[in-house]
This record gives sequence, structure tokens and C-alpha cells, in this order.
Amino acid sequence: MRILVVNVNTTESITEAIGKQAATAAAPGTEIVPLTPPFGAESVEGNYESYLAAIAVMEAVRAYPDPFDAIVQAGYGEHGREGLQELFDVPVVDITEAAASTAQFVGRRYSVVTSLDRTVPLIEDRLHAAGLSARCASVRASGMPVLELERDPQAAVDAIAEQAARAVEDDRAEAICLGCGGMAGLAERVIQRTGVPVIDGVTSAVTIAESLVRLGLTTSKVRTYAPPRPKAMTNWPPPIS
Amino acid sequence: MRILVVNVNTTESITEAIGKQAATAAAPGTEIVPLTPPFGAESVEGNYESYLAAIAVMEAVRAYPDPFDAIVQAGYGEHGREGLQELFDVPVVDITEAAASTAQFVGRRYSVVTSLDRTVPLIEDRLHAAGLSARCASVRASGMPVLELERDPQAAVDAIAEQAARAVEDDRAEAICLGCGGMAGLAERVIQRTGVPVIDGVTSAVTIAESLVRLGLTTSKVRTYAPPRPKAMTNWPPPIS
Amino acid sequence: MRILVVNVNTTESITEAIGKQAATAAAPGTEIVPLTPPFGAESVEGNYESYLAAIAVMEAVRAYPDPFDAIVQAGYGEHGREGLQELFDVPVVDITEAAASTAQFVGRRYSVVTSLDRTVPLIEDRLHAAGLSARCASVRASGMPVLELERDPQAAVDAIAEQAARAVEDDRAEAICLGCGGMAGLAERVIQRTGVPVIDGVTSAVTIAESLVRLGLTTSKVRTYAPPRPKAMTNWPPPIS
Amino acid sequence: MRILVVNVNTTESITEAIGKQAATAAAPGTEIVPLTPPFGAESVEGNYESYLAAIAVMEAVRAYPDPFDAIVQAGYGEHGREGLQELFDVPVVDITEAAASTAQFVGRRYSVVTSLDRTVPLIEDRLHAAGLSARCASVRASGMPVLELERDPQAAVDAIAEQAARAVEDDRAEAICLGCGGMAGLAERVIQRTGVPVIDGVTSAVTIAESLVRLGLTTSKVRTYAPPRPKAMTNWPPPIS
Amino acid sequence: MRILVVNVNTTESITEAIGKQAATAAAPGTEIVPLTPPFGAESVEGNYESYLAAIAVMEAVRAYPDPFDAIVQAGYGEHGREGLQELFDVPVVDITEAAASTAQFVGRRYSVVTSLDRTVPLIEDRLHAAGLSARCASVRASGMPVLELERDPQAAVDAIAEQAARAVEDDRAEAICLGCGGMAGLAERVIQRTGVPVIDGVTSAVTIAESLVRLGLTTSKVRTYAPPRPKAMTNWPPPIS
Amino acid sequence: MRILVVNVNTTESITEAIGKQAATAAAPGTEIVPLTPPFGAESVEGNYESYLAAIAVMEAVRAYPDPFDAIVQAGYGEHGREGLQELFDVPVVDITEAAASTAQFVGRRYSVVTSLDRTVPLIEDRLHAAGLSARCASVRASGMPVLELERDPQAAVDAIAEQAARAVEDDRAEAICLGCGGMAGLAERVIQRTGVPVIDGVTSAVTIAESLVRLGLTTSKVRTYAPPRPKAMTNWPPPIS
Repeated sequence: MRILVVNVNTTESITEAIGKQAATAAAPGTEIVPLTPPFGAESVEGNYESYLAAIAVMEAVRAYPDPFDAIVQAGYGEHGREGLQELFDVPVVDITEAAASTAQFVGRRYSVVTSLDRTVPLIEDRLHAAGLSARCASVRASGMPVLELERDPQAAVDAIAEQAARAVEDDRAEAICLGCGGMAGLAERVIQRTGVPVIDGVTSAVTIAESLVRLGLTTSKVRTYAPPRPKAMTNWPPPIS
Repeated sequence: MRILVVNVNTTESITEAIGKQAATAAAPGTEIVPLTPPFGAESVEGNYESYLAAIAVMEAVRAYPDPFDAIVQAGYGEHGREGLQELFDVPVVDITEAAASTAQFVGRRYSVVTSLDRTVPLIEDRLHAAGLSARCASVRASGMPVLELERDPQAAVDAIAEQAARAVEDDRAEAICLGCGGMAGLAERVIQRTGVPVIDGVTSAVTIAESLVRLGLTTSKVRTYAPPRPKAMTNWPPPIS
Repeated sequence: MRILVVNVNTTESITEAIGKQAATAAAPGTEIVPLTPPFGAESVEGNYESYLAAIAVMEAVRAYPDPFDAIVQAGYGEHGREGLQELFDVPVVDITEAAASTAQFVGRRYSVVTSLDRTVPLIEDRLHAAGLSARCASVRASGMPVLELERDPQAAVDAIAEQAARAVEDDRAEAICLGCGGMAGLAERVIQRTGVPVIDGVTSAVTIAESLVRLGLTTSKVRTYAPPRPKAMTNWPPPIS
Repeated sequence: MRILVVNVNTTESITEAIGKQAATAAAPGTEIVPLTPPFGAESVEGNYESYLAAIAVMEAVRAYPDPFDAIVQAGYGEHGREGLQELFDVPVVDITEAAASTAQFVGRRYSVVTSLDRTVPLIEDRLHAAGLSARCASVRASGMPVLELERDPQAAVDAIAEQAARAVEDDRAEAICLGCGGMAGLAERVIQRTGVPVIDGVTSAVTIAESLVRLGLTTSKVRTYAPPRPKAMTNWPPPIS
Repeated sequence: MRILVVNVNTTESITEAIGKQAATAAAPGTEIVPLTPPFGAESVEGNYESYLAAIAVMEAVRAYPDPFDAIVQAGYGEHGREGLQELFDVPVVDITEAAASTAQFVGRRYSVVTSLDRTVPLIEDRLHAAGLSARCASVRASGMPVLELERDPQAAVDAIAEQAARAVEDDRAEAICLGCGGMAGLAERVIQRTGVPVIDGVTSAVTIAESLVRLGLTTSKVRTYAPPRPKAMTNWPPPIS
Repeated sequence: MRILVVNVNTTESITEAIGKQAATAAAPGTEIVPLTPPFGAESVEGNYESYLAAIAVMEAVRAYPDPFDAIVQAGYGEHGREGLQELFDVPVVDITEAAASTAQFVGRRYSVVTSLDRTVPLIEDRLHAAGLSARCASVRASGMPVLELERDPQAAVDAIAEQAARAVEDDRAEAICLGCGGMAGLAERVIQRTGVPVIDGVTSAVTIAESLVRLGLTTSKVRTYAPPRPKAMTNWPPPIS
């Protein structure tokens, strides 16, 4: 089984890290293929960049030359999953939805903890649209900009663990979804601080994609995700050097 | 006051028609500037095309050289409004939301009637995300493909009027939003058939945009619609000949 | 175009102030006619007074001798809009709904800030009934009684600005609707304190009423807002000296 | 114990019938006092008449000279209960809410069946505002005008029983609230047609009012239903001959 | 009229106390029969014990030899009411729902205050399932374990009164449902601390059960609560010595 | 990895069939252990039987002597999952929730099709409680009693396929969850009739259980699913011969 795991930003090192993370959860015989979008922003932290990522991810998958069995869209709170579902028959799993869906099996309510405050609404909107917000206790951000995070990773991890603790105590979450990239030791620190299960989007998405494939399920094509009708396109796809 | 009215597809004749429609509602002194996206599909009827339109609309506005006071996104049920709100300070009005918001002032519940069945979910999703679905009685489609519509416009108008009548009688709508392009005589036929107010997205959006400008309101920048943070972009924007 | 702007209490000086406020937003050629109810309370701060205001407003409009094009009901969180819609064909715009509807175009979520704690439930109920609560972050009150407000207006403005700031920071509002009368400098102080758009109910209602008239829309009469059926009335309307 | 049962229209024969109906459910020692509003419409079938009834009911209770223990507002889907709760300390029970609340104890979902189509939205709005709509399967109307009903009562009863049957079969109701006046044999016919419990608003309200009194409960006065603040009134209450 | 009031745990002294509490609200002529389940836990504080109590309560009622008119299930937030409704025709009233339903007649929003934090989700789930959560402001716990409560009852009462006060002030509750056993002086202390009506589940359930019987209502049998179909049972009911 | 798959009724042949169905989805190295409850009904078709099944399933798992990694509760719409989560640390997966959660990854909305009408409310309640009803288009029943089904299996399959087709066409489902036991050829017939993905609860639950184990996740114990507190039990567990 081959699963394409598509990064939403253009930073190759992040693609590589996502690929490694995905591989830790893959079953024997599953090949993880990490992909980087052909265009877009070095990081995705808002609606403009997220919309751009949506179509860049679609082009990344379209450009992939070999057969594949499932697609994982590896950006937290990003647009675009529905478009992928139109373009391809294989299952498409968004990591925001995968984490929430998984969290609901191990806790009565879950919270998402992310880095920047401005991405909170995007995550809330995606969970709402996906019908996964009824058991969402909160989406919280550490408020730390990425640069701060790079300058003092331990402080960033502590800030996120602190928000996770407040989610458990104040918002009554019983599981935490990590809505931000893989900082070293993050999951461990959150578990240590809160005592609740911690769910990573990429690994949970990989197991869900594998499950869907094993069950022989593919995307329903009767209405919302029917293939685009044939039509004339102007200046698209763009010439990528 | 200058309002950019941006088509979501690349068909110039539709842009022109939208511009004319918009002009009928504009106050004296308001200049309507119709824009066509620099890339994308000849018509937008699904998520893939809609996501593509989202960023094409953003590029169309970015390419516009002169000052302007407001933006109307003239596609029914399309993605992208939040991105425009990040990129620009002036008010952004989506016609799906404009029509619904207007309908709520003249009827207790409204329905949207559109052409193709597959666009129903997109419209539902946008209304849901916009917090405008509590008074939405239904989103209905005539089920007629566009080609059929061109071959027999009178039948298309009748089919849409029939769905409007069912919305009023079966779904208890008291106003109808037209979620499809300006077919000749459509509004008149629906009014004649149902006796309820009929709301057009483009004209209602123009009056709302004018109102926001006159009230001195601009998009809130404290959180969701803050400008994108400066960052490196790869292969974007695309070279458009 | 002539718009009746109807105060909900019997204090003429407030009617006058509302009329002036309305005029600042009116387009050239729009005549604002402020009306005071023929009976009722000097101020409306609860359900009893609000129900009384509802029918007093209807009588005020019924007593107006000349033609008019729209009605603005200028009380925050008050009952009665549906009755006006039954009695008259022209558009009726409630300022609570106008402000909320307008706020949703410039911010993802809005809060309402009002003066007295006891009016919060009325405002919440009206927004709920109008289907406008999905994006309402909170309705907050300064808790200051009106007399206190008159004794120390600067303290009142500060108390309201403080609640607006808490709405933005704690409740994640991105726009503020002012649910209380026009204190001097209030809007400016709230903008200065919060940095978010501030919406006034009266001015936003005037622009919406103008828009509805310009679009040729009138109240739907097919069901909820059908004219009252002819029937015998006892002791009504009351003899007003 | 004395319970005021207040009709919402000015037709004395209906007041009398409501009083008799109430008495059938009253416990030994409970005195039912039927009241007719001092002004208003001969029947209440829409928002205008309902708002007028709201304040007329309040005046009827204010004019009652003797002590009393509870108030039943005997109009289906009418405005005004919150105002009564402000003016008086004793429990106030609205028959719309009483019936729904009672129905929920004997069936998983309930429907309301009423006479005129135009009163459906009023009933829906009251249930929604009262937080009683989650288990409401539907509000249905026979569509028969009152005059038709008088001309052919058996046909009216059959029409209502037919809607009740559709509520049980199509909307999955398991109990029926009768949202219309006491037609002879109506409840029996509905039970015979549907096999489900049938709840009458007036009798269920009487038992709830008695229960509240027996439990020593009175209306909460901490916020929403606090007594009106003392203030100057203009031309109110009206001189009633 | 005979009402069975069934405790959910096996502690006889609690059954006795519940019976006494019930008797204080019973009308003349109503006989209260307190029952203890034949098996189960000495106290019910979680889902396992609650599911066990559900069937134990059913067995307790099945073993009762004489006729009866209604059943009160006297456990806060417990499972099982739907099963009782299938097995018996007479009305079944759960105290969690009785208290909430009663609270809604005297305050706009209510809160439940209970003892242990872990029972909060059970109460929330029952209110949600019963369609009674729209007006629930919060479910709060004192966090005090039962043993602590026994060691220092005054401190326990104070802790619960403190949570009630926070419910009124922070969560905007206007009535308080006591979701825990009858500590001496508890209701008085909460009323004194908050000034809002305090509702006890057992007494409100008794008055509701009496009302249903007096109205001639029994459980609807058309769908959800139809009697179990005849079928073979294995090892059930258990041999109880 | 060892997964206990627990039937909810006492019919051994059904346990065996469930075990075989589970095995078809299990990964290499996963051992499926089918269990039959030690007491209860031969089939579970209502709340009484379902509550009884809830505790019987708990006893079945408690009696299992060897270590295990996850539990699948194999009854559609049954009570009890929360109790299992309290008693055990390993992941617990209910097939109703597993099917819904899986369906949401392959279609925008899903419907459940079951056999008996009376089990529809149980399924609806479980989906509602699990926060999985936002994307549930409908729960439909063929209305055929089980005996009819045994007499004419082909007619039963056709009846279910017919309801699935109506779910897709009328309710706009895009995926179907089979809420009834494995009739031969059922899934194939539904796919053939509707063209949408068909999800089986047992197989999807097995893949989810495997995923949770592989991700190292166990049930959160901080609040709702904390182990029962130690306490005295009366007459429980029952003596099972």
C-alpha cells in the first residue's frame, strides 16, 4: 500500500520530518511518500496561505507519476480536502479531522493546542465544517510566534503544555490533539503535564488511511465529490520550472 | 466610491453580465469595476474549481492597479472570502452571504435555488460557516446541467421556478435567493410563481458594500483576518502572460 | 425615500438624538422621520416595558399620516419587529439585527456591549430568534445603572470600553456592536481601546433599509408576516389625548 | 390555592370554556379564576394580535383585585410570558411550554397540531425561545380557517387528526400537543387516530402551576425577571371604560 | 395514587431519606413507596455503577407485587429511564429531568450543582439526551469526595453553595438544581447565598408524576417505548436470595 | 495484538458470525476473540434489552481470563460503552460510532439503515451522544420484523437496499452504514442499488481498535472514564452457572 503524505508548505525539511513521523505509524508493507507542493508559502499560518496551499497540494498529487492508495493532507486546519476528494478516487484524510476523530475514541471531549492565535479560527472552522466540533472542548494557542519558538524551543514546549493543562482543567478536555509541528519532546511533555492521551495528526491520519484502504472504501462520487466536469481551463495549471 | 466586482470563472461574457447586473443596484457616484480572474475554469461547479477560483480572485484583485473601496466576490457558494479579507483592508462581500443576509430582513426563512445538484453542498457549507444557516429553509437545485439550460432556457427557468415553489410550500421558505446566473426573466418568473421576495446575490452585495463604506467600516484585523505575515514564497504568483 | 425611525421609549430628547444619528448615515435624498411612541416608559430596560413598546411603536407608525418607504425600530433587544412586518408592506429593520448582520461582514465573531445587566437576556433572545447568534461571541453589560451613567459619563464610557476589550480578548470577538444609546465619544473610545470595528445599530439599520428599498424588496406576505385577518377589536386602539 | 387563567383574546365565551377546561384538572382546593383581557382582538392569530394580547394579559392580571398564587397564560404560541414574570412574583405558566414540557415525559418526541398555518411560526418561535424545540418533531396546521371550522366541526376535527397522524408517521412524533381550542371530541379523535398520548395546554399548565406552588417556588428575580425599575410612564395604562 | 420512588443505590438509609423527601411534596391521597434495588453499588458515581443501577431499578420495580400509578427514578444523572418506560405503562419520571423541567418555569437558565466532578459528564449527557440542555447554564461540582463530606458536612454545604453562587454570577444561572443527596440545610444555605429558586429533584419529580396521572397520561407505546418483544432470555433475571 | 469482540446478545451463532466478520478486517498478527454475554436476551431490539446487554458485556469482558489490547462492542445503537471505558484501560470501540466515524471520511453525509423501526431512536441517541450526528443524514429502518427476514431473506435485503436508496436520493446521504447483522449479499446489493460506499460496523471497529493500539493510545482516565471508586457491592456480580 502506498500513501502520499502531502505537506502544505514549501519547506522541504518539514516535508521530510512529516514523512518520518508518518513512517512511525505505518504498518509493515505500507510505503509513505512525502510530497512538497510545487508552489506556495514556506509556512501556512492563515487563510490566504491556506487557500494557496489547497491548490498547490492538489497539483502536487496530480504531478505524482505512480499509482497510490490514499492521500494524507498534512496541514493543521487547512483548506482543500474536498478538492482532493473530487480529483481522486482513493481515500483522502486530513490530519485535523483524523486527530479529532481519533481523540473521540479515547476521551469524552478533546482540545486542540496550536502555536499561533491566528490559526485558531481556521482549525475551528474546519472542525465545524467536518461535523467534529460537538465534542471539541476548545482550540487553544500558545500565542508564541514561530521565531520565538526557534529561539527557545523549551519555552515553546512549556507554553503549549501549559495550554494543554488549561484545556484539561478549565475546558474539561480529556484528550489533546497537537495542532502544530513535531517539536522534540512535545507529546511527552504534554502527557507528563496533563495525564491525558495526546494525539498527533499525521500518525493518526496514516492509520485511518490504511484502514480505509484495507476496508476497500473509496470516496463517494454520487454528489459532493463527483469528478470535475470536463471544461476549458485558462492559464492553468501554471508552468512550474 | 469604487467597487471591484470579481467573477469567479474565466468567461468574459459572464464577467460583463455580472458588471451590468451590479450597476443596476449601484448608487449614483459608485463605480462598478468588473474583473475576470487571470486563470481558472470557464465555469465553477465544484470544490476543485472553487478552490482554484479562490486564489485566482485574490490574484485578480492584487493585479488591479488603482485604489478601490470594496470588493464583491461574485460566485455562489465559492471559497476564498477569508483570504481576500486578509489581503485587503476594504470590506469584502461574498454574494452568497449578501443574499442570505438580505433575505433575512424580508422573510422569516429563505431558500436558495441553484442549477446543479452538486453545488448544493458548497452553498450549504458556506452558509453554515458564515453562521447564516439557522434561517435557511433549504438549498435546492433544478438538477438541469448547464448545456440543457442553454438548449432550452425557458425549461430551465421553469425548472428553477418549480423548485422555488416547492421551497415555499414544502420547506416553508418565505424568500428565495437565486443561486445561479442571470437568466432572462428568471426573477420575474419566480416571483410570479411563488409570490415571495426574490433576492439576487450581486445586487444585494453591491448595496451592502456601499453601506459598509458609507459607515466607515473596514475588515477587522485583530485575529482571523490579520494580514499574512511576511514570508518566502515559492513559484508564486505564477507568471501570467 | 422616506424612512421612519421609531424610538421605543417616550423621551423626546432621545428620539431627537436617534434622528440625528440616523441622518448621519442617510444617503442624499433620504428623509429621516423620527417618531416617538404615543405611550409607554421613559426608558425601556426589561420585558414588560419592551412588550409595551412593541405595540406603542406599531401605533406610532399607524398614526403617521404620510407615505413612507421603510421602518427602523430603534431599540436594542426589543420585541415587536414581527408585528410591524404584519401591519406594513415596507421593509422593517430592527437595529439589533442590523448591527449584528453588519458586524458579520467585517469580523468573524462579534460581541454586543450594553449598559444594564438585565437587558442582556433580551438582546440574546432577539439574536437567537433572528438566527444571528452563531457568530455572536457574547453580550456583555457594564452593569452601570443609567443614573450613574448620567452622573459620570466618562466612567460609563470607560466601563463599556473595558467590556468591549474583554469581549475581544476573552470572548474572541472581532467586532463590537454598541447596544446602548449614543454617549459622546463612545465609539471612538471603544475603537481606541480594542482596535476592532465598532457598529452602531441606528446607522447600520438606515443603510440596510435604504438598500432594501433600492433593491425593490418588501416584506414577504405568504405566511408569518401576512396582514392580520379582519376581526373585531375591543377597546383598541386606546384613546390618546 | 388560587390560579388566574388568562385568556389572550376578548371573546368571553372562550374565556369561559378555558376556565371549565382548567377546572377539570385542578386539585381539590384549587380555585380557577378565568380572566378576559380588557382590550385586544376577538381571536389571536398572528404577531400583531399576539403582542397586543401580551400587554392586555398583563393589564388583566394587574386589575385583578385579590391575592392569587399562580398565573396561567392560556394562548398557544403567544408573546408576553416574560413580562408577566417581571410584574409578579408568583409562578407564570404558558400553555405552549406546559404542553411541550409535559409531552416530553410521555414520548421521546412530540408534535404540535394547530389550526391555521400562519400561527405555526409563532409556536415554533416560542418553543425555540423556551429551549423546548430539541424534541419537537414538528408543528403542523390543518390549514382550515376558523370559519370553515365552525361550519363543519367534524371536518375540522378530522383535518387535525389527520395532521396528528402524519406527525406520528412522517415526523416520528410519539405524543401530540393540541395547539388549538377545545373542539368537542378532538382529543378522543386524535387518540383514536394515532394511538399516542394527547396533551392539552390548559390542563397541563394548571397541574404545573399547582406543583410550583406546592414546592414553594416563585419566579427568580436575580436578572431577567427582576421587577421593572421605577420610571415615568406616558399615557399608560390606558383608560378602560 | 401510589408512586414508586426507586433509589439507584443499595443503601437502605438513603432509600429511606428519599422516601421522606418525596412524602413532603406528595398531595393528600398519594402514597409514596420507596424501593431499594436488589443489587448494585452502595453509591452510584460513574457510568459502570449507573448502568448496573439502571437494570437493578428495573428489577426492583418488576419485583414490586402491588399495582402502582407512576415511577420516580431517584438518581441524579443515571441511565435507565427509557428501559422503565418500555417495561411499564405508567409514567416514569427521572429526577434529573424533573428538576431541569421545573427550573425552566422559574428561571431563564438553570445550573445543576453536584458533589463529585466525575458525575458532571453523566448529568450533562442525560440533559443533552433529554433535550433539556438549551437552557442549562452549567453543571458544576464541589469536587469534594463523599467521605470528606461526611467528616465535615458544613464545609460540604459551603462548597456547594459556593459553586451555586458562581453558577449564578459567572454562568448566569437564575435557578439552581441540587444534583446531590439531601444534606441538612443545603437548600436553605444555597438560597441564602444566591437568592435564586432552588429545585430538588425528588420533590419536583413527585409533583410531575402526580400531574401526569391526574391528566390521565401514560407512556407512549408507538415506537421508542413499545414493550419488549417476547424472546428467550439467558440467565436472567438473576437469582436474588 | 488481541481484540475482544463482544456480541450484545446471547445467541452463540451470531457471536460466531461477528467473529468471522471481524477476522476479515484484522491485520496479520491480530487475534480476534469473540465473546458472548453470560446473560441477557437472544436479540437486542430496545432499551430494556440494551441496558441489560450493557452490563452483560461488561461481565463478559471481566470474565475473560487472558490479557487483551482492545475491546469492540458489537451491537448497533446499544448502551454501555462508557462503562467499559471505566472498567478497562484499553481502547473501547463501539461499532455504531466506528461506522459513523469511518463513513465521514468517504462521504459528506451518511445514513444508517437498520431493520426494525423501534431501534432507530436508540441509534439516533447514541450518535447524538457521541457527537456524530452533525453529518448524519438519517437513520432508516426497513420496518421488517426479524421473523419476516428469516422467512424471506431476499425480500429483507431488497427492503434495506430500498431504504438505502431513499437515504441517498431523499436525505442526500453519500455513504451508508449498515446497522444490522450480516445478511448474505447485503453490502453488495446496497452498493449495486446506490453506488455509494457501504460501511460495516464490525470491520471498521476492528481497524480503528488496531489503529488506537498501534498509536499507543488508551482511554483517558482523568474524569469521565476514571476507574470506579472502591465500594461495597450487593448481590453483584450474579452467580452464573
